[in-house]
Amino acid sequence: MELDFSKLDGLIPAVIQDYQSGRVLMVGFMNEEAFRKTVETGYATFYSRTRNKLWLKGETSGHRLVVKEISADCDLDTVLVKVEALGPGVCHEGYQSCFFRRLDGGAWKESETRVYDPKAVYGN
Amino acid sequence: MELDFSKLDGLIPAVIQDYQSGRVLMVGFMNEEAFRKTVETGYATFYSRTRNKLWLKGETSGHRLVVKEISADCDLDTVLVKVEALGPGVCHEGYQSCFFRRLDGGAWKESETRVYDPKAVYGN
Repeated sequence: MELDFSKLDGLIPAVIQDYQSGRVLMVGFMNEEAFRKTVETGYATFYSRTRNKLWLKGETSGHRLVVKEISADCDLDTVLVKVEALGPGVCHEGYQSCFFRRLDGGAWKESETRVYDPKAVYGN
Repeated sequence: MELDFSKLDGLIPAVIQDYQSGRVLMVGFMNEEAFRKTVETGYATFYSRTRNKLWLKGETSGHRLVVKEISADCDLDTVLVKVEALGPGVCHEGYQSCFFRRLDGGAWKESETRVYDPKAVYGN
């Protein structure tokens, strides 16, 4: 039973969920190598579609995602990774979760405050 | 502030999460029309990549997903939809969640039992 990377040109979506609170923190994409590295190292590793290379989450910020459990869906084309998130926030914009905007009256509105200053972590 | 449908040929991933338990139930894809219908009708609607058409989740089974809250991520290319799932299970294979297989010792193993008989709901 192998994951099916064929539907999105070699990638599968990976949903990252806090293993304690259940909050969905981000969604990234993994190719086969990123998935293998995630399993082997115990740290979530993605394939960056904009940079076209593997991306160890937290390699710059230190905010790594420690893998606690991995599940696959019925079609074997999506994974759910429960993690312990190191650092105050997962989002590179300074929020705990990348899903910090809520649809409210037809517009996206920030639904929470920043937990860290992204400039202090990532520079400019 | 508009969703960015350009990265996956007109589609964005939509993570479906139970609004009470926090369980991730499934991941589908939406095109702009599916997203609009989801917002307008209050029922999660996807774009089926295999059937190449809109797909109102539950149109066959009755197991609709009632939208409670929609969030977008920092890049505006993924949505998180919190729902009340009507019916015993979301997965067409008879499970509460599509993520019913857990990675265990390098292999995918069923980590829960079926909650309904898919043949009784979907026929053959």
